[in-house]
Amino acid sequence: MNYTTGTGDLQHWLVSEDGFRTEWLGKGEAVFSLGNGYMGLRSVTEEHYANEKRNSFVAGTFNKFAENEVTELPNAADILWMEFKLNGIRFDLTQGTILTYRRTLNLKKAELVREVTWQSPDGNVYDLTFRRFVSMAHLHVIAQRVTITPKQDSTLSLTSGINGQMTNSGVQHFLEGTKRLYDGRFMQQIQTTTESGIDFVFHSVHRFHQRESIEPMSIIKMDRRQIFFDYSDVRIPANETLTIEKYSTIFTSRDHDMTADTTEELASFALNATREVEAKGYDRLFADHVQAFDELVWSRTPITIRSKDMFDQLAIRFAQYHLAVMTPKHDNRMNIGAKGLSGEGYKGHTFWDSEIFILPYYTYTNPTIARSLLEYRYLSLPGAHRKANENGYDGAMFPWESAWLDDGEVTPIWGAADIVTGEATKIWSGFIEQHITSDIAFAAWQYYHVTGDQDFMDRYGYELLIDTAKFWASRLEWNESENRYEINQVVGPDEYKEHVNNNAFTNYTAHWNIQKAIEYVELLRREKPELYERLNEKLDLQATETRFHHVLDLIYLPQVREDGVLPQDDTYLQKEIIDLTKYKNQENVGSLFYDYNLEQVNEIQVSKQADVMILMYLLEDLFSAEIKRSNWEYYEPKTLHDSSLSLSTHSVLASDLGDQELAYDLFRRASEIDLGPNMKTSDAGIHAASLGGIWQAVINGFGGVRMTSGNLLISPMLPKAWDELRFPIAWKGETLDIWATHDQVTVTRRSPSTKPLVIEVYGEKQTILDTFTSEVLSV
Amino acid sequence: MNYTTGTGDLQHWLVSEDGFRTEWLGKGEAVFSLGNGYMGLRSVTEEHYANEKRNSFVAGTFNKFAENEVTELPNAADILWMEFKLNGIRFDLTQGTILTYRRTLNLKKAELVREVTWQSPDGNVYDLTFRRFVSMAHLHVIAQRVTITPKQDSTLSLTSGINGQMTNSGVQHFLEGTKRLYDGRFMQQIQTTTESGIDFVFHSVHRFHQRESIEPMSIIKMDRRQIFFDYSDVRIPANETLTIEKYSTIFTSRDHDMTADTTEELASFALNATREVEAKGYDRLFADHVQAFDELVWSRTPITIRSKDMFDQLAIRFAQYHLAVMTPKHDNRMNIGAKGLSGEGYKGHTFWDSEIFILPYYTYTNPTIARSLLEYRYLSLPGAHRKANENGYDGAMFPWESAWLDDGEVTPIWGAADIVTGEATKIWSGFIEQHITSDIAFAAWQYYHVTGDQDFMDRYGYELLIDTAKFWASRLEWNESENRYEINQVVGPDEYKEHVNNNAFTNYTAHWNIQKAIEYVELLRREKPELYERLNEKLDLQATETRFHHVLDLIYLPQVREDGVLPQDDTYLQKEIIDLTKYKNQENVGSLFYDYNLEQVNEIQVSKQADVMILMYLLEDLFSAEIKRSNWEYYEPKTLHDSSLSLSTHSVLASDLGDQELAYDLFRRASEIDLGPNMKTSDAGIHAASLGGIWQAVINGFGGVRMTSGNLLISPMLPKAWDELRFPIAWKGETLDIWATHDQVTVTRRSPSTKPLVIEVYGEKQTILDTFTSEVLSV
Repeated sequence: MNYTTGTGDLQHWLVSEDGFRTEWLGKGEAVFSLGNGYMGLRSVTEEHYANEKRNSFVAGTFNKFAENEVTELPNAADILWMEFKLNGIRFDLTQGTILTYRRTLNLKKAELVREVTWQSPDGNVYDLTFRRFVSMAHLHVIAQRVTITPKQDSTLSLTSGINGQMTNSGVQHFLEGTKRLYDGRFMQQIQTTTESGIDFVFHSVHRFHQRESIEPMSIIKMDRRQIFFDYSDVRIPANETLTIEKYSTIFTSRDHDMTADTTEELASFALNATREVEAKGYDRLFADHVQAFDELVWSRTPITIRSKDMFDQLAIRFAQYHLAVMTPKHDNRMNIGAKGLSGEGYKGHTFWDSEIFILPYYTYTNPTIARSLLEYRYLSLPGAHRKANENGYDGAMFPWESAWLDDGEVTPIWGAADIVTGEATKIWSGFIEQHITSDIAFAAWQYYHVTGDQDFMDRYGYELLIDTAKFWASRLEWNESENRYEINQVVGPDEYKEHVNNNAFTNYTAHWNIQKAIEYVELLRREKPELYERLNEKLDLQATETRFHHVLDLIYLPQVREDGVLPQDDTYLQKEIIDLTKYKNQENVGSLFYDYNLEQVNEIQVSKQADVMILMYLLEDLFSAEIKRSNWEYYEPKTLHDSSLSLSTHSVLASDLGDQELAYDLFRRASEIDLGPNMKTSDAGIHAASLGGIWQAVINGFGGVRMTSGNLLISPMLPKAWDELRFPIAWKGETLDIWATHDQVTVTRRSPSTKPLVIEVYGEKQTILDTFTSEVLSV
Repeated sequence: MNYTTGTGDLQHWLVSEDGFRTEWLGKGEAVFSLGNGYMGLRSVTEEHYANEKRNSFVAGTFNKFAENEVTELPNAADILWMEFKLNGIRFDLTQGTILTYRRTLNLKKAELVREVTWQSPDGNVYDLTFRRFVSMAHLHVIAQRVTITPKQDSTLSLTSGINGQMTNSGVQHFLEGTKRLYDGRFMQQIQTTTESGIDFVFHSVHRFHQRESIEPMSIIKMDRRQIFFDYSDVRIPANETLTIEKYSTIFTSRDHDMTADTTEELASFALNATREVEAKGYDRLFADHVQAFDELVWSRTPITIRSKDMFDQLAIRFAQYHLAVMTPKHDNRMNIGAKGLSGEGYKGHTFWDSEIFILPYYTYTNPTIARSLLEYRYLSLPGAHRKANENGYDGAMFPWESAWLDDGEVTPIWGAADIVTGEATKIWSGFIEQHITSDIAFAAWQYYHVTGDQDFMDRYGYELLIDTAKFWASRLEWNESENRYEINQVVGPDEYKEHVNNNAFTNYTAHWNIQKAIEYVELLRREKPELYERLNEKLDLQATETRFHHVLDLIYLPQVREDGVLPQDDTYLQKEIIDLTKYKNQENVGSLFYDYNLEQVNEIQVSKQADVMILMYLLEDLFSAEIKRSNWEYYEPKTLHDSSLSLSTHSVLASDLGDQELAYDLFRRASEIDLGPNMKTSDAGIHAASLGGIWQAVINGFGGVRMTSGNLLISPMLPKAWDELRFPIAWKGETLDIWATHDQVTVTRRSPSTKPLVIEVYGEKQTILDTFTSEVLSV
């Protein structure tokens, strides 16, 4: 994969691949994936190749194949499918000769363009371009435009339509459904998910131009779960251009804005919408789309990195692009999947990735979206209660993996092969990776203090914070001999340690969660008696508060050793230390498991990802710079960064430790998870949390933006390679533009106000009315 | 597709393709398909290509994806899958250069061999051979042997295992299941069908040789529904050969010979069996297989055609080969699917194809198998009663499409697109194509008279004949004004005419069925009082017989017009006549529907296939040669042969009419349905009925073998292209060898007997003790 500088306006906006190899299909499908939060499509080619992975997802449409299997986002019908025959030979880049080839994702316009000059095995030569976009303006619309310019008189035949035979790696989530052609042109397929009963309505229609609009010979066909046209005998004179447009729409009965009572009404609404879409035409649809994308992302949150390496600017835009196409901002019953909508990996489920890695981006740049994502968690309280109840606890025990609001836990139980026993490895996260609950509480608290959104707190935030704390209060285990509360038998963020006791991250954040809940219960009783009463009915606040007070100071918080190292858990520091060089230098993650099984890994001082380090990032006030450094020096060499969540966190922490060059190196490595030269990293989808992490590495790391105790801190420190960093942040309802160089930093309030704003710049409180400039200081 | 003469022993035994094109994958997958009646595998390549269709079926394991969908034979896990990397480049014939290529199905040995010399895009050259067979000796076994001989020092990596992600065109019939590795080598995957609850147990194990046995570096992997090994870094010196063997087995809980009570027992049995299979090794397994295949087919039923065109000999062997690999001879709860086990077409369902087109082959060559197939129908009486009952009739109303014994009707309801309305076309066969019931009765009667198997009749045959007649007696509709019984609103064999009244084929065979039943009821009462009593209890014989007698002579039998034409139904002869030239000359079947929808076709004098003609073949006694000719001349020009059942029937009838050259032409066209140059005909699977029909065209047509009223008639008449035809037939427990040339015919009793055998040769009764030779006469 190469990245390319465009010229002029397009500088740092284009991600291109210059070569075609079927081994690389998965990478391109994921990193070029298109979407708009309502739907996401892997960027498969129109024509089929072996080992391709054709995926189209509609956010929030989870389905379960069988009672004992895990719910997942179903792979919907493929509407990108177009098979061309040119002078009788299938257009297939593995055959003949590729004379020129480039595929480019234009991040600014969110358009994918493939340009090929292909010499067919029969010697004929064709110029082809394939453009497509998934509209950010009209969430149900996918548009494709193909042009074919042969160098010699040619004949085209084309098969194109809707293919509902798609599965999730073999799992079929849809009933057979129905197919129908309308107006002799509009193909319709309706399929319903097998268990969740969601109707999907697909439409596709074609248009052909060659100097003027033409109507080729065609025959409509229906096969199993397929409806398509066979067009034949389309003549294209030498050096003339045939343009084929395909307009498709997807609607579902889960659509929020849909008032249809029946499948028929939905289908009829969708058909009419498709007629309008086609009438609008590609150019107008595209203009609407580009404008909507710009308003959502580029105009709202422009981030400029002037670097010696143009890759850095591209990397942050790539992250912003993908965050935009993966986020279901239109519907608070949905959240972000660990692979966005770009692959089957993690089944579309939501993890702590959303709150700890992605949410800060939205909290600081588009709080409306952040709020919608947090509302999803509030709306999932029934599932969290169910999980708590099933496990014998009180309050809200959020599922490690989350899908439908009321599902509760949806983590699969079996994973990869155990090389020792020959059996599948049991995945314990769904049972005992419990820190997700305080992660959500933390994110809600962070959102509130960054945005000042009191309405959110009144409606959802206080309840979330107290209900999660209730879970922790019930989860604690009394250790009589030590006279303390412990949290035993958990998995912390470092998933290479299972069934550990008193994982520092878990205990500290649980403690923090209860502490915040106590503050808020007191505040409510004092200042918001009505809300207190309402929540009291739901949460039994009096008894709850008593319990909180009882446990808080008895919770065991692992303490820093003399050498400054905070034990990750009760036993980590006593485990075997082995030479990890081989795995630290690995080409692909997870190579440790070629030599050890998980049970063995459990007994070694090796970490998958940040654990103690992320604690020191989130609750940064609790630990001195010196302690942070000691722990970095102890844990980082033992961390394989086998989770894509790890590198960006370490980059931010390296910035904190004042090592900008290390931070830069880690930022680059994080950016290369999806955008780097390893062609196999993204097959299962892009790494959503890492993309959020890249934004954090830039803004929270190099930009030095933090919120602690409700205060805004800004202390930019750029790496050598950068000359300049500019970015906006949202802060309590207004927007601040921050401009940092190696010499100075300027903070400008976009809407100057007479109400002074107090922030800390390099540790010094500053009061700002309009703009403020400081020298760069070391902190 | 080319056919090739081998040399010496292999003459006329090899079907080869000499070129590789991904557009042709479907053809090769079907015509080269392997099997043993227990299972059938499409002959996909080891490595994946776009648009391939990987299918593995186990006979009789039907499953229904959803309540309102149709039961079908599920596509089981793919165990042929092997992906090679040679010096880091994927072995993929669409890339690099194919220096030599041949893929050959050896019909005699039932082995598939692919030999390729491939130049990789990096310039390296490799000789590869791929051999495989599905054992006829050990029904659960598939063995593969791959050799790789590089022209330069090379490194191989290989991914190979079991892939349970397969679907039937997107329909997943299996639950996720479990995976496990045993002994560090034996991969196991267990999957259970979702509705019918059949456990499938798959095992695969590899062996590597290079001068001696080697064990390459490997890692076991499990992915969703997949278990496989990644082998890496296998070094192959220049011009040395690496051999890889893969032994796989499939067992299911439906296996007849399986006594396992639990899935665990079955899995453990299967694992041990796989250990034994691997211990035996490829060569011994192969020898066992070749011997078993020879005993089943080639030694038992050798057919020699000495023709000016070697294709003719190949064609009959090709038919015999496929009939052997598709027929579940091991289990009378199963029958033959319309595509055998070679594709998803027709969902593995059994049609009249079994009785009218395929069964004569077994009745005349291997009666044990014919009996097992008829027992399937007997065992399906519960389903036939259910269908009768649901439709308000008595007796056994056999389903048009049949799967499980007690399913009753399983014909899908919706078919291809209606080009006029844009909707899917309704398939009426399952509702009103009712002649299947008399077809089954006819086949049982034919079997009895050819074999003399009285035990069959006593146990099953009489009951079948009477129970089917009971259905017809209840099905008849009284026409008061005409004073007759009619059968209205049916589909006859010609499926281009729906909802017709008094289809000649249906009425005549229903009449025949009742007539035979009357004979048998009388016979039982007279000669087998015990059996009569038993059946009387089941079938209420007294009332039934009364009803039979009442209706028989009142059944309306359409009568031949003055011009000798028998009306196909009440309205056919009044319909519009159009110029069918375009469709008679079509390249692919069904081209009529590019211009008309089924409703319009219904109003034209055009037939899909033989209808009146097949009646005149089955009940040949009822119609004079002159009438047969008149009807041929009227109907054949209106018949598009859009059904693969049509050409062979017409070939036999052309033989009857004394037009051997026309018969030969039709035989060739029938043979070319699968084996001909059109590369798209077999994508959905081979044409089982047509293969049975090819045997009939040869033996019943050119060989002139018939049974009428229990007597054997032999009147060979060879086409000009042939010099000689030799074949055996089974007749009432003994084997007759028939040798025909243009001059004379010799009939030899394989086991000479003192009990004289009376047969008709060219219309003359002959009594044979040992052998008999006649001149060829025109009849």
